[in-house]
Amino acid sequence: MILNRNNKFQTACIFYMLFFSITIFAQEPADYVNPFIGTSNYGAAFPGPIAPRGMASISPFNVAGVKNTPMEKDSQWLSNPYVNENTFLTGFSQVNLSGVGCPELGVILLMPTTGNVEIDHLKYGSTYSNEVAKAAYYSVNIDKYKVKGEFTASKRVGISRFTFPKGQSNILLNLGLGLTNEEGAMIKVVSPTEIEGMRSVGSFCYNSPEDAYPVYFVAQFSKPADKFGVWKKPTKYNGVEAQWMGYNGKARMMDNTIKTVVGDSIGSYFTYKFDKQETVEVKIGISYVSIENARENLAKEVGNRSFDAIYKETYNEWNEELSKILVEGGTKDDNTIFYTALYHTLIHPNTLNDINGEYPVIKRSKIAKTKDTRYTVFSLWDTYRNVHPLMSLVYPKQQSDMIKSMLDMFDENGWLPKWELNSTETFTMVGDPASIVITDTYLRGIRDYDINKAYYAMLKGADNTENNPLRPGLKDYIKKGYLTTDNKGPVSTTQEYNISDYAISLMANEFGDKDNVKRFKERSLSYRKLFDKNLNLLRPRTANGNWYEPFDPASGANFEENVGFIEGNAWQYNFMVPHDIKGLMKLMGGEKPFSAQLQKIFDIKQFDMANEPDIANPYLFNYVKGEEYKAQDMVKKLVHEYFKNEPKGLPGNDDTGTMSAWLVYSMMGIYPISPGDPIYTITAPMFHRVTIKLDPRYYKKESIVIERQINNGGKINSIELNGKSLNTFFISHDDFVNGTKLKVIQN
Amino acid sequence: MILNRNNKFQTACIFYMLFFSITIFAQEPADYVNPFIGTSNYGAAFPGPIAPRGMASISPFNVAGVKNTPMEKDSQWLSNPYVNENTFLTGFSQVNLSGVGCPELGVILLMPTTGNVEIDHLKYGSTYSNEVAKAAYYSVNIDKYKVKGEFTASKRVGISRFTFPKGQSNILLNLGLGLTNEEGAMIKVVSPTEIEGMRSVGSFCYNSPEDAYPVYFVAQFSKPADKFGVWKKPTKYNGVEAQWMGYNGKARMMDNTIKTVVGDSIGSYFTYKFDKQETVEVKIGISYVSIENARENLAKEVGNRSFDAIYKETYNEWNEELSKILVEGGTKDDNTIFYTALYHTLIHPNTLNDINGEYPVIKRSKIAKTKDTRYTVFSLWDTYRNVHPLMSLVYPKQQSDMIKSMLDMFDENGWLPKWELNSTETFTMVGDPASIVITDTYLRGIRDYDINKAYYAMLKGADNTENNPLRPGLKDYIKKGYLTTDNKGPVSTTQEYNISDYAISLMANEFGDKDNVKRFKERSLSYRKLFDKNLNLLRPRTANGNWYEPFDPASGANFEENVGFIEGNAWQYNFMVPHDIKGLMKLMGGEKPFSAQLQKIFDIKQFDMANEPDIANPYLFNYVKGEEYKAQDMVKKLVHEYFKNEPKGLPGNDDTGTMSAWLVYSMMGIYPISPGDPIYTITAPMFHRVTIKLDPRYYKKESIVIERQINNGGKINSIELNGKSLNTFFISHDDFVNGTKLKVIQN
Repeated sequence: MILNRNNKFQTACIFYMLFFSITIFAQEPADYVNPFIGTSNYGAAFPGPIAPRGMASISPFNVAGVKNTPMEKDSQWLSNPYVNENTFLTGFSQVNLSGVGCPELGVILLMPTTGNVEIDHLKYGSTYSNEVAKAAYYSVNIDKYKVKGEFTASKRVGISRFTFPKGQSNILLNLGLGLTNEEGAMIKVVSPTEIEGMRSVGSFCYNSPEDAYPVYFVAQFSKPADKFGVWKKPTKYNGVEAQWMGYNGKARMMDNTIKTVVGDSIGSYFTYKFDKQETVEVKIGISYVSIENARENLAKEVGNRSFDAIYKETYNEWNEELSKILVEGGTKDDNTIFYTALYHTLIHPNTLNDINGEYPVIKRSKIAKTKDTRYTVFSLWDTYRNVHPLMSLVYPKQQSDMIKSMLDMFDENGWLPKWELNSTETFTMVGDPASIVITDTYLRGIRDYDINKAYYAMLKGADNTENNPLRPGLKDYIKKGYLTTDNKGPVSTTQEYNISDYAISLMANEFGDKDNVKRFKERSLSYRKLFDKNLNLLRPRTANGNWYEPFDPASGANFEENVGFIEGNAWQYNFMVPHDIKGLMKLMGGEKPFSAQLQKIFDIKQFDMANEPDIANPYLFNYVKGEEYKAQDMVKKLVHEYFKNEPKGLPGNDDTGTMSAWLVYSMMGIYPISPGDPIYTITAPMFHRVTIKLDPRYYKKESIVIERQINNGGKINSIELNGKSLNTFFISHDDFVNGTKLKVIQN
Repeated sequence: MILNRNNKFQTACIFYMLFFSITIFAQEPADYVNPFIGTSNYGAAFPGPIAPRGMASISPFNVAGVKNTPMEKDSQWLSNPYVNENTFLTGFSQVNLSGVGCPELGVILLMPTTGNVEIDHLKYGSTYSNEVAKAAYYSVNIDKYKVKGEFTASKRVGISRFTFPKGQSNILLNLGLGLTNEEGAMIKVVSPTEIEGMRSVGSFCYNSPEDAYPVYFVAQFSKPADKFGVWKKPTKYNGVEAQWMGYNGKARMMDNTIKTVVGDSIGSYFTYKFDKQETVEVKIGISYVSIENARENLAKEVGNRSFDAIYKETYNEWNEELSKILVEGGTKDDNTIFYTALYHTLIHPNTLNDINGEYPVIKRSKIAKTKDTRYTVFSLWDTYRNVHPLMSLVYPKQQSDMIKSMLDMFDENGWLPKWELNSTETFTMVGDPASIVITDTYLRGIRDYDINKAYYAMLKGADNTENNPLRPGLKDYIKKGYLTTDNKGPVSTTQEYNISDYAISLMANEFGDKDNVKRFKERSLSYRKLFDKNLNLLRPRTANGNWYEPFDPASGANFEENVGFIEGNAWQYNFMVPHDIKGLMKLMGGEKPFSAQLQKIFDIKQFDMANEPDIANPYLFNYVKGEEYKAQDMVKKLVHEYFKNEPKGLPGNDDTGTMSAWLVYSMMGIYPISPGDPIYTITAPMFHRVTIKLDPRYYKKESIVIERQINNGGKINSIELNGKSLNTFFISHDDFVNGTKLKVIQN
């Protein structure tokens, strides 16, 4: 609830109380969203408003300045604009990434102040209080200035409303400060109610600086500034002429100017003299194409409509999306973590195209136009595991447009995406996950795109050994079955290629392309050559085929670099062959040793809930007849241990919704155990009833219900589909979506 | 003539030979222009093409890099993009100032290269040969690449034509390098034939950095690039994160991108693969308003027309302007230095408005629109002395538009201009010269502007003692009659204010404003309080009224700083009271001591031909009956000593045409001896006949002829106006322009 100690806010307060009363009493899915979840413990979520898959978003920015402990952005590898424990606010960034592992975006910082204009964020920053975060809404009191900030957003426009006390008030737009490590901006005050400009961002994960790119914006103010201007702090010149430059390296204030200013450290100030408390709304349209498009996005999405109107609209949009899954029988916290997780899966991939359809193609060699949605921010190494299968089930139109976006990238770039970010290919992480996502989507029945092109693209990435940016080390892989220690993360990469190749073999099967079915099926099992029977672990081999020595399976935990594995160690990658669990079981000597090894990982605390390679592990007990209860217990335990209704309520980096998707599935009692292969494995749902509404454009049934029947709360006794026992803990996607009710009966 | 050793150029060569043959045989005034004059000896002229009063111009840029001795731009105070003695060329700048005393503009550098793209100007720079410079045309061979560059310009568009050999060729557009000390630029490759962007310039004379401003451009290429891209060299980041930034501080190449890039050190490259020798034309439109306007300027002024068509058009424009004065009976060198000087007076003030009439108002608080021409680059401390009187005589419409521009500045800014540069007021130098220029223009009969506003503006500058940016020290001046040594250059400034006040008294007379006639007449004589009878010199007084001690009259020569005077010393300022020469004579004790003192300045070598305070001195002998021959001799001597048909052919800085105007007048045999007061004094013309065509919009007579009759080559015997003896060496502007022939008869 919004608490206002100050009776000056009374009018606004009454309005909000009425407004929220209605929604609170209704307890709609969107009301359960708690955007603070994941804003601590490296979750990398931000608490500010965003529309579903929005291009624009607003985050309080509290990671700059030494006053911000524990998490100052420049003192470490920090990937989020906001950390819940920090206390020093220096603005509100207008474009942000959620749940990523590298610093990026977090730029175009709006900041209200009072009194004289101060442009140094270390000086104008403030503590803050009374934060409120909800779906599509965030508000906060900025202590130093007694200013209240409220924020909402449409898809491409962020809207800020500042309530200022009487006196001189200022709204700063700082284009120097930012989370990104890129520098460079341009700004122009168009009129006393409008600013336009751009900010350079890029070099995601400190890579590919040549791909740094602009984000354009237009900011419109509801009240004309009494005074406006631009500042610039130039770099210091060292040379003979410096003796005549009394201004060398000093910040410059440029009042009342409409000229274009560029620089690394620039900004604009709008100043007001208020006789009484006043509010100013600032609407900031965003575009990755041009200033003109940013202006058009603003005009067409928001125009003259009020903050409240836009908030209501975006809230409704969230509610509609989140209502695609209705849960019953959970506690308030259960509902909160569930819907917040679902909310997190609806942030990335996000919209890249402007409202007129324009977007920059990969590497920005031209501007293209789409009639659908062009999506961006494909963290595919993470999301292929569960996010995209979830989208295919619940939001198939979005998933279809994501596939179309990926295929458009292939047209633009010659390659499917790997880790695409605002039309740059960051080549972060390893593997060739696009093939898995496409196959998975296709086999779940989402097929309204050019599958011939997709298959061609998959094969190109899988077979092309020359200048293949997707699959480094492919020659070795094809020849030897594995990457050697001459490559980065050779075991992990081999496993990733295996999973992709398995997906390709499934797709080849759809095409009746028998040779490739066989070839890629075989390729998908080559990880077996890295299985060290003595250790029951996968282990790197050197170029001459020998085991890599010395080998410490535990090395590589906590993102420590190691030979063999990427972001993990031999324990965490031990079971990451989801397409060949039975083969792995055989390698290990059968069900018992398999089960023992799986259990051991948990027991010796090598299981990492916070990173992707082993997140399916708890479900693998379902492959061992009679031990399925271990999966049920383990999933329940992990959910309760790592997912909470609090800022630390994610196990770590959300990885653009992958951790959240894990939770959504886990709480529903199903999990897409083998990405690419459309099957689910089943554990105990955490709600009495879950109703998934199906999109009639893609599915025959209106909805599918997962129902839990608990007798004594024990292990699952039977699973019924439409009243008929399944006799297995696995169900195909087809059977699932063409059923009506999946009933899980616990002893 | 264009010399081509390479027979590959044959076709082009034949064309040019034909073309130039015609113009050479015709010996039109424009054919005499030698743009190399003033490109050495600190003349600060540039040899490249410009249209009369053009906004755009192209100069070879050879002042960067240690290889450039004697004149490297960053090792000293250097105010021109080209120095004739230098040898290392790093491009062709597209906006340039001519004959100014501070480094400014000299940006947007185009450079052709061959082979691999190299973006470091120290590496891609080259020696050059076979320079040809003419009105509206410059060409040069770039040795390192065997590329020929040819250049012409329309008013707002520079056009470059490069003839490349077979192989890989590149055209670089470097936005980092520049003569200005400002940094910051923006660039975007719009298509394989177009680039748009802006460059920050400003801080003229290392002043007013907050007024730095953008120059916008659009560059269009006649052939689409086979490959294009942008580079950026970012500033080096120092921080914890630098450890992950392998690219820290390194230049980045961004191929095939149409994204906007900003930075201090950026540029663009267009690359071609040619099977044979090929030419590429690059047209660069300029605007101080916006990129859109730059594009419109390019489209409407040049469009698809060829280099040759534009060259012909601008050549014709020059010829028409220069033909306003026809000279007969001079040597080729006489004609050359005369027409080149006239050419130099037609460069600044130059056009600021775009072709659609838009221009930025002073300080850029908005964009305004004019139906006339908005002029800029008013170096009024220099130009009030002779440039504007010359414009009133020969180009009265231009002079009228200049007055309108100055009055518009008053409307925009509240003050008349002092040293206006591209809508920034640089406040360089001292005095309040705008009043003199307006009065001078008005009294010469050019009156189609709002003289009431002008008079109001003049009085405001002259009387307002609070926050008056034009007249610092005004309180002292009004109270004591002079500025004290508490102010900068108190004697010089007092003299300047005196001259302005005299002009105001003349204007007050026009208004019948008797009080002000008297008041300002009295004020104009206050310099007398600084006259030290013992020294026969003006001398600074301290705040308590005492002479400043110790006083060395010689201190302050050669721009040395000194107490009392600005850019000069007591000798050089000794006679700078053009409105009260008779009063000064009285102070000195009559004609004899006056003449002796005047002669002494020349004899002890304190006369400075290269700076404004004393440039009227030679003419002052005309005030001494019987010594007028000294003026004749001295002027002749100075013309021959300082003005030559060679790069060193100006006495020093041209001061936006002031030195050149001095020459034009001196060669015609008349000089506007008292700015503001429309009289000329007369010496011996250096041509047999000079015909000045008068503008029928302002003058009754079609033309006025100055004729020389030399009997034995001795001193002037008599001067006749329309056959009637004048009996004086002075003539009013009215009598002059309403006569038909001024005949100067020498013994």
